[in-house]
Amino acid sequence: MKKIEGLIAAPFAPLSAKDEVMYDFIPGYYEFLEKNKVVGVFINGSTGEGVSLSQAEKRKITEKWTSVGSVRKTMKVINLVGGTSYQECIESAIHSQENGVDAIAILAPYYFKPAGAKQLAEFCAKIAAAVPDMPVYFYHIPVLTGCNVSMLDFLQEASPIIPNLVGIKYTHEDFMDFLSCMSFENGRFDMLWGRDENLLSALVLGAKGGVGSTFNYAAPLYLQLIEAFDKGDLVEARRLQQLSIDMIRLLGKYGGIASGKAYMRYVEMNCGEFRLPVKNMTGEMYNEFVKDVKSLDMEHLFSKK
Amino acid sequence: MKKIEGLIAAPFAPLSAKDEVMYDFIPGYYEFLEKNKVVGVFINGSTGEGVSLSQAEKRKITEKWTSVGSVRKTMKVINLVGGTSYQECIESAIHSQENGVDAIAILAPYYFKPAGAKQLAEFCAKIAAAVPDMPVYFYHIPVLTGCNVSMLDFLQEASPIIPNLVGIKYTHEDFMDFLSCMSFENGRFDMLWGRDENLLSALVLGAKGGVGSTFNYAAPLYLQLIEAFDKGDLVEARRLQQLSIDMIRLLGKYGGIASGKAYMRYVEMNCGEFRLPVKNMTGEMYNEFVKDVKSLDMEHLFSKK
Amino acid sequence: MKKIEGLIAAPFAPLSAKDEVMYDFIPGYYEFLEKNKVVGVFINGSTGEGVSLSQAEKRKITEKWTSVGSVRKTMKVINLVGGTSYQECIESAIHSQENGVDAIAILAPYYFKPAGAKQLAEFCAKIAAAVPDMPVYFYHIPVLTGCNVSMLDFLQEASPIIPNLVGIKYTHEDFMDFLSCMSFENGRFDMLWGRDENLLSALVLGAKGGVGSTFNYAAPLYLQLIEAFDKGDLVEARRLQQLSIDMIRLLGKYGGIASGKAYMRYVEMNCGEFRLPVKNMTGEMYNEFVKDVKSLDMEHLFSKK
Amino acid sequence: MKKIEGLIAAPFAPLSAKDEVMYDFIPGYYEFLEKNKVVGVFINGSTGEGVSLSQAEKRKITEKWTSVGSVRKTMKVINLVGGTSYQECIESAIHSQENGVDAIAILAPYYFKPAGAKQLAEFCAKIAAAVPDMPVYFYHIPVLTGCNVSMLDFLQEASPIIPNLVGIKYTHEDFMDFLSCMSFENGRFDMLWGRDENLLSALVLGAKGGVGSTFNYAAPLYLQLIEAFDKGDLVEARRLQQLSIDMIRLLGKYGGIASGKAYMRYVEMNCGEFRLPVKNMTGEMYNEFVKDVKSLDMEHLFSKK
Repeated sequence: MKKIEGLIAAPFAPLSAKDEVMYDFIPGYYEFLEKNKVVGVFINGSTGEGVSLSQAEKRKITEKWTSVGSVRKTMKVINLVGGTSYQECIESAIHSQENGVDAIAILAPYYFKPAGAKQLAEFCAKIAAAVPDMPVYFYHIPVLTGCNVSMLDFLQEASPIIPNLVGIKYTHEDFMDFLSCMSFENGRFDMLWGRDENLLSALVLGAKGGVGSTFNYAAPLYLQLIEAFDKGDLVEARRLQQLSIDMIRLLGKYGGIASGKAYMRYVEMNCGEFRLPVKNMTGEMYNEFVKDVKSLDMEHLFSKK
Repeated sequence: MKKIEGLIAAPFAPLSAKDEVMYDFIPGYYEFLEKNKVVGVFINGSTGEGVSLSQAEKRKITEKWTSVGSVRKTMKVINLVGGTSYQECIESAIHSQENGVDAIAILAPYYFKPAGAKQLAEFCAKIAAAVPDMPVYFYHIPVLTGCNVSMLDFLQEASPIIPNLVGIKYTHEDFMDFLSCMSFENGRFDMLWGRDENLLSALVLGAKGGVGSTFNYAAPLYLQLIEAFDKGDLVEARRLQQLSIDMIRLLGKYGGIASGKAYMRYVEMNCGEFRLPVKNMTGEMYNEFVKDVKSLDMEHLFSKK
Repeated sequence: MKKIEGLIAAPFAPLSAKDEVMYDFIPGYYEFLEKNKVVGVFINGSTGEGVSLSQAEKRKITEKWTSVGSVRKTMKVINLVGGTSYQECIESAIHSQENGVDAIAILAPYYFKPAGAKQLAEFCAKIAAAVPDMPVYFYHIPVLTGCNVSMLDFLQEASPIIPNLVGIKYTHEDFMDFLSCMSFENGRFDMLWGRDENLLSALVLGAKGGVGSTFNYAAPLYLQLIEAFDKGDLVEARRLQQLSIDMIRLLGKYGGIASGKAYMRYVEMNCGEFRLPVKNMTGEMYNEFVKDVKSLDMEHLFSKK
Repeated sequence: MKKIEGLIAAPFAPLSAKDEVMYDFIPGYYEFLEKNKVVGVFINGSTGEGVSLSQAEKRKITEKWTSVGSVRKTMKVINLVGGTSYQECIESAIHSQENGVDAIAILAPYYFKPAGAKQLAEFCAKIAAAVPDMPVYFYHIPVLTGCNVSMLDFLQEASPIIPNLVGIKYTHEDFMDFLSCMSFENGRFDMLWGRDENLLSALVLGAKGGVGSTFNYAAPLYLQLIEAFDKGDLVEARRLQQLSIDMIRLLGKYGGIASGKAYMRYVEMNCGEFRLPVKNMTGEMYNEFVKDVKSLDMEHLFSKK
């Protein structure tokens, strides 16, 4: 699989007021992202509430994204099959392969934390071995998994035993580790940056692609940021990164990850709220939120229907 | 449901060398615990590797324990139905009810951490409401879930909205919070202590029962400890608690939770090793471990076949 | 030095509205504690804001407590000489000796954290060796120092190289470690419990004395608790421990450590506010606080002038 | 004070085998840094073991650096006056001013952690107000102080009440917060980057200067890195940053901060070992270390006498 360049969005799970997955929302969602020049989707991840969905729901979501994808073929579909039971991960991996997913991603188990890089690599190897022809990414997000193994250590253990490992979705602020992974084995691994708020600091280290939740609704902002960086216009790149930060700071102000869906509503792609145990903002808070978003004065940088 | 007095063991998942669940091990396991005066089993928990098993495996394990239990009726069966998807928890809860489980237990979701006691209570309420006639325990183990909500706060939120909540399995060192829960609403909740290494400090606060992994193989030790405490012989109670600590310290020395199964092998109830991502000791380490166990000089305090 | 039985208070630093130490407050403070049957003072500790005072101020405070103590002789004076520079600790230790302090206490350095028990013991040994005839306590409070060395490991390293080490003020919730220290070398170390809110759980392990901040203003509560425990009246002991918890919970509600001085004002021993960077409650909050204290209905359990 | 561009070294405290400060080492140290194009020194900081020195020692070290500096005038001298007692910080600040220090730096108090940005700003304001004509930097290093206040919040509180605040030495990986501080009040604050291992990711955000411990012995490496970045040669800049990481990884391998002095010995500026409680490497380890350093093949990038 070629390395991915550009923006990969991590889609939200579209949920109805009754907390049911709205599968029919997905085709329009695909076209919305495609129209805004997103090149891939990372489904059933953190933003996609994979852990809060049942295995059955995740399978149907996968089928929906790949069925649209197999027709339009404009975006790669990466499916997170991670969980704490490697057997259920294998089931999801096989299902992914059967349904034309382009690559799977595996997460560190997040209840029993692996004792070290070796155990983590062995856990991933079990799953990857079940789909030997499928490209595999590792999804590194220690703030949620509690697994603090360095990715350089992981690659050293995993490279010899997982032949289909192709890269890492790196959602952590350890740039020392990130650059080391970029340099590892002549840079053969595809390192996808996962912290939208400091994308610029990863671009300078050579990152070409990123997986992000804010790419769902502010793709133009990041495309312009990358363009400015590529042209060497750092003043503009910094200005845009600061705007991204101002936008992301509102997520924190209004309660965290659930606020991402408020942004989706703002760009008229309302996909409901987050499932429990995540806390959602109230209707009153949403009105405050909209005022704050408008005061950012960045309408032209949000994704458009 | 009456409050539970005495020892509740959290059984290990019996796994073969091929990493398959040995369901037929369970009837003998039941009799072993029963013979050593254990009064209940807490299945599919941390010790039972519930998170590392598939839903299908957990269901079969549940069926096996309840099928023996329905005949012998000497031990209560509590089934942990916790997970990160409340829908899958509900499926497990209903299956538990259909199979004669005495009570279910719910765990805090451990990927997205609840924002506070309110979200945690609401998450649990969704599951508890699906089995309104079933007694429900909350299983508090923040070191593994990363959910640091205090249990007093939880009870204040949960008591009004979960009518079938009966107690907490409390696996944490916050005695201030624990006593506060003991005192809450005239002590109506069944507070089961979950840290074997300091059971004595919980007994003095009024705890009558505990759920533990070391009760699997050292029940006589704890029964004598409780007896000494009840008689007011604190010197003896402390001596036995110190022995329990010495025994538990070997778990740490030999790598953690997986060493519990080494103790099971030691008492001739070999139930295999832990599943990935947990690290197991090597054969050589096991020999060292046995020497260390023998030097504790506490043969008469281990459970007997 | 004989092991200490009973309550050791950790006095507050009396500060004026101009943030100056009111040294003349100390003689009356001594008599207040003495009258309430406190048997010792642990000065310049966390409660005493030792780290926020200058070396010069701490020296004068020491002189004041020992000058009263040398006349009245009813309470032991233990002086915390801890800091991050062992040389300044040695200066304080020698000054303590010259001024008739009964014992010194040493804290883990809290900027560079010791790599392990060996480095911690060596750091303490440097200081203890400067006052070989002075009894030395180690003050374990990892929540503030960030030094998480277990005290059993520390004793194993320190016992052979610090001949004048006599015990530990143990301000942490690790009862497994605490009991192990109680058992170490036939129980020769004086283990002083430092968490007032769970004193009962330490008494059952054999603790005879404690060092606490709430002993400053609620000594009768704890004396009754100890008496009830000694008589085997656990129902009463639990009731009193729960009252202590209710009282301590108000510290948290009103902002933490600084609220201790609000309790002092409440018992008419007003010793001002905490120095920066600690946050104090506003006057309005104090009025709310007083209402809350009164609703605890425990007037007879507070210390009396 | 003009913003600082270039490398500011944080000098080590030169200590003899008897653990005494070798003040006479300092003039040669000054010339060594100067020769390697370092533009400033940040003394008595973490690398300089300020917290492990006595106030008297720190004062003499300050006097020595400024006495050389007042003659040679090639490097700025910034003195860390931080501590947990604001009064002792004030004493150091006044002493700094009297001795011609160019700027002082203040650290968050690291025993009692400030409740928030307001308390932190007020603590700093007390010290800064004592030397109103002296430029003041805040030194942000939460991994050691345990104070996790965001610097954007700090600047919002501090800007109105500390007129002589000029910038921040930022030793933390929060690039979102760092860029926000760069953008704050039209970029009027001097943001000095403090993590050598990811300097490149800060340069792209607009950082012009850095304070580092590895600038003591590898200044040419970083000067070349900055030059490559300024020319737009990112491939070369990344290669050099990776070399810096490889060099810094050896610090971790050989025990942490103390290994910095092993590098100093390697470049023939032996300034002894670290003081307790820091752990030093053994002689045997040093030999291993030298082999590892040589295998980095970067002799030309180390500082030269």
